[in-house]
Amino acid sequence: MGKPAFSDFVSIRDFTKEQINEIMRNAAKMVPYARGEKKTNVMSGKILGTLFYEPSTRTKLSFEAAMLRLGGATMGFSSTAGTSIEKGENFSDTIRVTESYADILVIRHPLEGAARLAADLSEKPVINAGDGAGQHPTQTVLDLYTMLEAKGKLEGLNIVLLGDLKFGRTVHSLAEALAMFGANLTLVAPSSLEMPRDVINQIESMGVKPNYAHSLEEAISDADILYVTRIQKERFADPTEYAKVSGSYRIDTKLLKQAKSDISVMHPLPRVNEIDPEVDRTPHSLYFRQAANGIPVRMAVLCMLLGVEP
Amino acid sequence: MGKPAFSDFVSIRDFTKEQINEIMRNAAKMVPYARGEKKTNVMSGKILGTLFYEPSTRTKLSFEAAMLRLGGATMGFSSTAGTSIEKGENFSDTIRVTESYADILVIRHPLEGAARLAADLSEKPVINAGDGAGQHPTQTVLDLYTMLEAKGKLEGLNIVLLGDLKFGRTVHSLAEALAMFGANLTLVAPSSLEMPRDVINQIESMGVKPNYAHSLEEAISDADILYVTRIQKERFADPTEYAKVSGSYRIDTKLLKQAKSDISVMHPLPRVNEIDPEVDRTPHSLYFRQAANGIPVRMAVLCMLLGVEP
Amino acid sequence: MGKPAFSDFVSIRDFTKEQINEIMRNAAKMVPYARGEKKTNVMSGKILGTLFYEPSTRTKLSFEAAMLRLGGATMGFSSTAGTSIEKGENFSDTIRVTESYADILVIRHPLEGAARLAADLSEKPVINAGDGAGQHPTQTVLDLYTMLEAKGKLEGLNIVLLGDLKFGRTVHSLAEALAMFGANLTLVAPSSLEMPRDVINQIESMGVKPNYAHSLEEAISDADILYVTRIQKERFADPTEYAKVSGSYRIDTKLLKQAKSDISVMHPLPRVNEIDPEVDRTPHSLYFRQAANGIPVRMAVLCMLLGVEP
Repeated sequence: MGKPAFSDFVSIRDFTKEQINEIMRNAAKMVPYARGEKKTNVMSGKILGTLFYEPSTRTKLSFEAAMLRLGGATMGFSSTAGTSIEKGENFSDTIRVTESYADILVIRHPLEGAARLAADLSEKPVINAGDGAGQHPTQTVLDLYTMLEAKGKLEGLNIVLLGDLKFGRTVHSLAEALAMFGANLTLVAPSSLEMPRDVINQIESMGVKPNYAHSLEEAISDADILYVTRIQKERFADPTEYAKVSGSYRIDTKLLKQAKSDISVMHPLPRVNEIDPEVDRTPHSLYFRQAANGIPVRMAVLCMLLGVEP
Repeated sequence: MGKPAFSDFVSIRDFTKEQINEIMRNAAKMVPYARGEKKTNVMSGKILGTLFYEPSTRTKLSFEAAMLRLGGATMGFSSTAGTSIEKGENFSDTIRVTESYADILVIRHPLEGAARLAADLSEKPVINAGDGAGQHPTQTVLDLYTMLEAKGKLEGLNIVLLGDLKFGRTVHSLAEALAMFGANLTLVAPSSLEMPRDVINQIESMGVKPNYAHSLEEAISDADILYVTRIQKERFADPTEYAKVSGSYRIDTKLLKQAKSDISVMHPLPRVNEIDPEVDRTPHSLYFRQAANGIPVRMAVLCMLLGVEP
Repeated sequence: MGKPAFSDFVSIRDFTKEQINEIMRNAAKMVPYARGEKKTNVMSGKILGTLFYEPSTRTKLSFEAAMLRLGGATMGFSSTAGTSIEKGENFSDTIRVTESYADILVIRHPLEGAARLAADLSEKPVINAGDGAGQHPTQTVLDLYTMLEAKGKLEGLNIVLLGDLKFGRTVHSLAEALAMFGANLTLVAPSSLEMPRDVINQIESMGVKPNYAHSLEEAISDADILYVTRIQKERFADPTEYAKVSGSYRIDTKLLKQAKSDISVMHPLPRVNEIDPEVDRTPHSLYFRQAANGIPVRMAVLCMLLGVEP
């Protein structure tokens, strides 16, 4: 084991462009292992503790698969039912006990800041797998990695971010990271779900001035990537308003005919009705690839946090 | 890794007698590994994804044990609570994402046909661990294997199928498989829970004409194996009717005195009151052996699906 | 594999002082493996079945970590939801089936005596991880181990047991074990939560006469170890009574100033308000160390039950 590349993975804001590039280079090396084409045991004897204070089976499975593909083991909880937390235990006690059982912790928590607190408390590395309206940094890296893999570069790419830009957690860090990498951003959101002002400010401070499109057709006309997010019904007080919005933001092959021929469509999944299944069978579809890329990216992050040669 | 023997394991109807015999021969080789007497790592680095859309802890543990005994790893969910499915994700998206995390999937689903659909969608092998009123083919093979192990042959065996022959999922495929192997079948069921006509037709098309016994005593007089299924209270509108039926179908040592001295009693478990615990300590009892045989049979199926030399 | 040191681990009363000493010596050897500083694969291919009839995530994780650190695998259930038990299966059938899947079973059950029954039924080793008001013997050993590690001996130590001495499961077996090792006991409990008479009788039969302190200040004046337990709100009919008791039994640095300078504070965790977090940062705090010691102690017990050289 070598020296860890960094001590925790809490927010994408903690990392430089060069560090993110290094994670992505390591992720690329992980691909044959992630697919099970090659075998490694570098994490043999190591334990990943998965502390999911709110359920997120998909994210949990992705981290578990990453650890198992490296030859390591996992244990943890997928909700607070039946845990000491229900018996009144405070967050820091749970962290201090479970860090003595595991080598590395991945935490999902409904409250923003929880992963940061855990990282401060724990001597073992902590990965943030989503903290409320806060960060979900491995999602951001796998999004960047998927774009880079598909387009060969990030700088100068025209990227449309579509949907719930207000509450969609992943899209805030993604927008900031894309700005750092010099991509051009176009934002398309219903007026009640627009990108928060502080994220815009952050992006603009990095020298990127996002565009705002009046229509989806206009937005995608010169886009390289259309990044779609789920619009949650429960965000709308008025169901007819939801129906109107979700209908006008539905991606199908007819719409994509108005875009560049090599436009790629991404989505962090799960999707509900945002993308017509007919798009799945076209070369535009990148979202299943994106989900699969979660494994090599998380493998790279696990290795770098534990100082294991990837 | 060699060539897989088959690409999925969805229904027993997809397999020939010779293929089932090959699975059973491979299962026999697995026994010392299944019992932990010998150690193998042939599945090292491989991941079994367990997608249980309805809970079935016993079946899940049996598949997990099989994979672990082969040196592989497992991950998955045991109910849809907390999954993307709850967020509105459709079945095919869940399959496409999880297949990119794992090497092989085992699926339990309340709807008939779900496993077939998953097998069609997924490039990775899919095992059906029960789809509603449909199939549960590894259960069928382990039943056949247990009979073969106990009696040395299947052809010409006199087998009584007793209990809920209408809703009891496992008993339909078992009856068909036994007919294929040339066993003689006697069916004993309360009138409201008789074997469905299409299963009878299927059996008869294979040249086997099932017998119908008026009483359990008559049925077991020349039986080699008595296969008992659970009669579910909720199938009866009238509780007194249930009490009468379940009482008259209860197997005890007194009843077994009227059978051949080497009659074996089987049950897919869990049992409720169908078999008196006093039978457990007699040589007639085969049901715990049957449960244990689930491990080598599932090990054989996993190996054959992944082209791993068993 | 050698000969197992003992066949089950159900109650601390089944073991001699010398046997407990041997477990603690083996636990000490496990420490570098428990911390992940050294790697072992002695349990490779072995399966620990975790049968948790009532949820206890912490205990389950601790056993899982112990097995994983030894290179073994785990599987099981964390509540009876979705299991055969819900379908009406009796306890002994569940044990007999799961023992055919695993090499060793750990059982948590709400009813006293459940683990003993399982041990009688199962040919595989059974560990009791808590049976109602009964025993939780690995907790007792890790408590003794932590005291021995901190103080270099058990004989002659002055130990105060504080809090709910009536319902607190762990404190009964601990008191008996401490008496066996020749420690001096002082008991401090609210009048409604005093140590049961039969535990006192058992202790006195071993030649130890416990002291009773009128106040916490008096009790700790010459104590080497203060063992605190959680006082459960639901034990009090009158909330003001609870508030009074829990307030007067709260441990803080001010109180500890009245004790010997090297007094250690222990707690089986989770704690609620019994110990002020300011104590965590003092050398008195031993409770996180105590939780961490659960891993090497459980590793030692697993190895000794399976006859694996630790």
